[in-house]
Amino acid sequence: MHGKNADKASVIVIGGGLVGSLCACLMAQRGYRVTLYEKREDIRRTRANQGRSINLALSHRGRKALRLIGIEANILKNAIPMSARFLHNEFGSSTIMPYDPTSKQCIYSVGRNALNCALLTEAESRFNVDVKFNQKLVGVDFGKGAVTVQCTVTNTTLTVSADFIMGADGAFSTLRLFLQKCPLFDFSQYFIDHGYLELSVPAERGDGLVNNHLHIWPRGEFMMIALPNQDHSWTVTLFMPFKQFAAINSREKLLRFFRSRFPDALPLIGARELEEVYFGNAPASLVSIKCGRFHIGDKFLIIGDAAHAMVPFFGQGMNAGFEDCTLLDELLNHTKGNLAETARLFSEMRLADAHAICDLAMYNYKEMRDLVTKRSFKLRKHLDQYLSKLMPHIWIPLYISVSFTHMKYRECLKNKQWQDKVLFVLLLSTAGLMMLMCLAFAITFNH
Amino acid sequence: MHGKNADKASVIVIGGGLVGSLCACLMAQRGYRVTLYEKREDIRRTRANQGRSINLALSHRGRKALRLIGIEANILKNAIPMSARFLHNEFGSSTIMPYDPTSKQCIYSVGRNALNCALLTEAESRFNVDVKFNQKLVGVDFGKGAVTVQCTVTNTTLTVSADFIMGADGAFSTLRLFLQKCPLFDFSQYFIDHGYLELSVPAERGDGLVNNHLHIWPRGEFMMIALPNQDHSWTVTLFMPFKQFAAINSREKLLRFFRSRFPDALPLIGARELEEVYFGNAPASLVSIKCGRFHIGDKFLIIGDAAHAMVPFFGQGMNAGFEDCTLLDELLNHTKGNLAETARLFSEMRLADAHAICDLAMYNYKEMRDLVTKRSFKLRKHLDQYLSKLMPHIWIPLYISVSFTHMKYRECLKNKQWQDKVLFVLLLSTAGLMMLMCLAFAITFNH
Repeated sequence: MHGKNADKASVIVIGGGLVGSLCACLMAQRGYRVTLYEKREDIRRTRANQGRSINLALSHRGRKALRLIGIEANILKNAIPMSARFLHNEFGSSTIMPYDPTSKQCIYSVGRNALNCALLTEAESRFNVDVKFNQKLVGVDFGKGAVTVQCTVTNTTLTVSADFIMGADGAFSTLRLFLQKCPLFDFSQYFIDHGYLELSVPAERGDGLVNNHLHIWPRGEFMMIALPNQDHSWTVTLFMPFKQFAAINSREKLLRFFRSRFPDALPLIGARELEEVYFGNAPASLVSIKCGRFHIGDKFLIIGDAAHAMVPFFGQGMNAGFEDCTLLDELLNHTKGNLAETARLFSEMRLADAHAICDLAMYNYKEMRDLVTKRSFKLRKHLDQYLSKLMPHIWIPLYISVSFTHMKYRECLKNKQWQDKVLFVLLLSTAGLMMLMCLAFAITFNH
Repeated sequence: MHGKNADKASVIVIGGGLVGSLCACLMAQRGYRVTLYEKREDIRRTRANQGRSINLALSHRGRKALRLIGIEANILKNAIPMSARFLHNEFGSSTIMPYDPTSKQCIYSVGRNALNCALLTEAESRFNVDVKFNQKLVGVDFGKGAVTVQCTVTNTTLTVSADFIMGADGAFSTLRLFLQKCPLFDFSQYFIDHGYLELSVPAERGDGLVNNHLHIWPRGEFMMIALPNQDHSWTVTLFMPFKQFAAINSREKLLRFFRSRFPDALPLIGARELEEVYFGNAPASLVSIKCGRFHIGDKFLIIGDAAHAMVPFFGQGMNAGFEDCTLLDELLNHTKGNLAETARLFSEMRLADAHAICDLAMYNYKEMRDLVTKRSFKLRKHLDQYLSKLMPHIWIPLYISVSFTHMKYRECLKNKQWQDKVLFVLLLSTAGLMMLMCLAFAITFNH
């Protein structure tokens, strides 16, 4: 099924993160000569985690792309299944909310670093991708289909052309900055008021949290989550308004805050470790990025976070990026390797889905912090699950459609919107019925 | 009223367009040592118009800023007052709609090039601004408060620091590209479906259009406008969807299009000249740009189109940019020359107004093309004017508040919104009353 010119055409991938290295594998598997330029050094030779979130939730969409290059099983071997949310309520109680009460499907906690290393090694050793590290993108020639990269060690620059150039260089993509200067390239970046800080529960205290769950401490205006690591440690992320981070500016305030709001988590994290991380690091920002298109001309395409960075509250950033790779592969089949047509179709077909998942992630930003603690939300959730059991093929809850199906994101969003309407009417009629019954009771009683 | 350190502090202005050169004058007038870096060559020594719109509508907000540096009278001497819109209807008839029927105020057609040249000369000769041409911004050091510029002739680079650095480098601002990489800098750019092409009516046929009017040919999906120049020529701008530009791809189609839709304009423009310009130039794009803030740290601020580019349909782009300069001057009075505080306050106070005028310009994008030709719009316009005559201090029509007052743009927008509601209710009640009368008549008649 390879394109007719596939064995001759050359592809450049900018960015060797998760999406870039997977995409390089897929393109090389199709017979393209792929060169990957990565700004950072080879992460397989360093211990630094580059300050990025250390573990991620892998679900159906991401798994499908990994399956395409034959490494899904290998990755899942080192992943930790999470079957439910484990909610740590404010006053010591806890609630377990399975992700998929009917079919018991799981999401998987995977280490970003280990996955990235595995993908880079696959790219180099199995797919013969030419991976070049310490190479920063500094120039783009849209007319010629060329990019200029600069070595961060020697400062020498090199201009290289290719038949197709893909930007998978993340939320703050340099390639996209060049695209943004092109006429008719709509673009928006929006930062939310919350920042995040990564803490951890060390392996020796890892048993303090029930395994195979994604732990959440929802607290309204702020929240904390924890995902399990392979070595029994947990990566804990505190999401909080920047203002609140700034207000908690002394050891006393920090400990008082944790003692009153996260009393069960504090001993697991450790007071000394907490202070060290909290005062040693600035909270990082969270951005939502939307583009009006993903390609420019016949040769340039952006994918992954470069094309649609989202807030992390649906655990779909990596999965959406990997799904971009799947779609690209399908389109190359469909167009028989016509790269220009593929780029155009990718923009056309992916745009609404990218916007939908960005919106859904933003919606979950509110839901995870706030709604999970509200009675009305819990009632809605129970009804949702009940209807899903009753009509599993008709009533697919939002989280399930996003995480455990390959339904287009735009359909998931539409689904949610009509379900919201149905649930609203149901709840309203129930309330109306109850009022009628009360009225009937009152009248009966009066007589 | 100069700040206490004003005579010592240094200011860099990036961009020597209209807003940049006016801003440089104002800052130098306050005692700052101002250096202005402009990417292009000195426009006073070239005849090229750089493909930008050649004339602009100057109104109250712009005039106030020019008055601040004492050149309003001089500029108005070479400007052409426009008292009304002159609508060329589709079937040969015309309508004149005064901008301000009550007080007869005018907007002024000014040449972009002449105004820019005048401002640059003022900056250099009267205010001792150090203006450096052919200097392209290539780097920013936010920590040190420095910028790196590269000479476009010799390619040599120079890094210069200053106490305050202002970006007035237009809609595709390079300084803003650096700001966009900063955390928490919200940003959006949105291109409309319409492009524009500049045509002209030469001086010898200039009498074919009634002077002292802004001529409009509203045609629904597209439109054309003409503004008068000092030499009796007219600058004509055709706004049309890119698709339609692409569809009109032969001399025959072009002439047929103009003959049927702009029959009165074709002989004025000239068929040969029309063909030459139409097929010799690509239509330009129109962008609307919004930022979530205008400053970064204590030393960096963007103003004018760099901060809030808008579609040109309210004639407020330059006026809003000039009003930025007025606000800056007022804030420097208020903060007694505290530049950091001024930057922070400027962001805080100007944001909502910048967004409002961008939205209003987008609204006029629809109104000018479409609504002016609709009966319902005309009825609304008449009612609007009637109410304005009845209660001139309470009912200020949108166009008047934007063009002939210094009311904050956000208030203009709010005003318009409640006026829309009142007019809707009025029109609805009138319709209701008429229906009642018909009913009464019918009943009477039946008896």
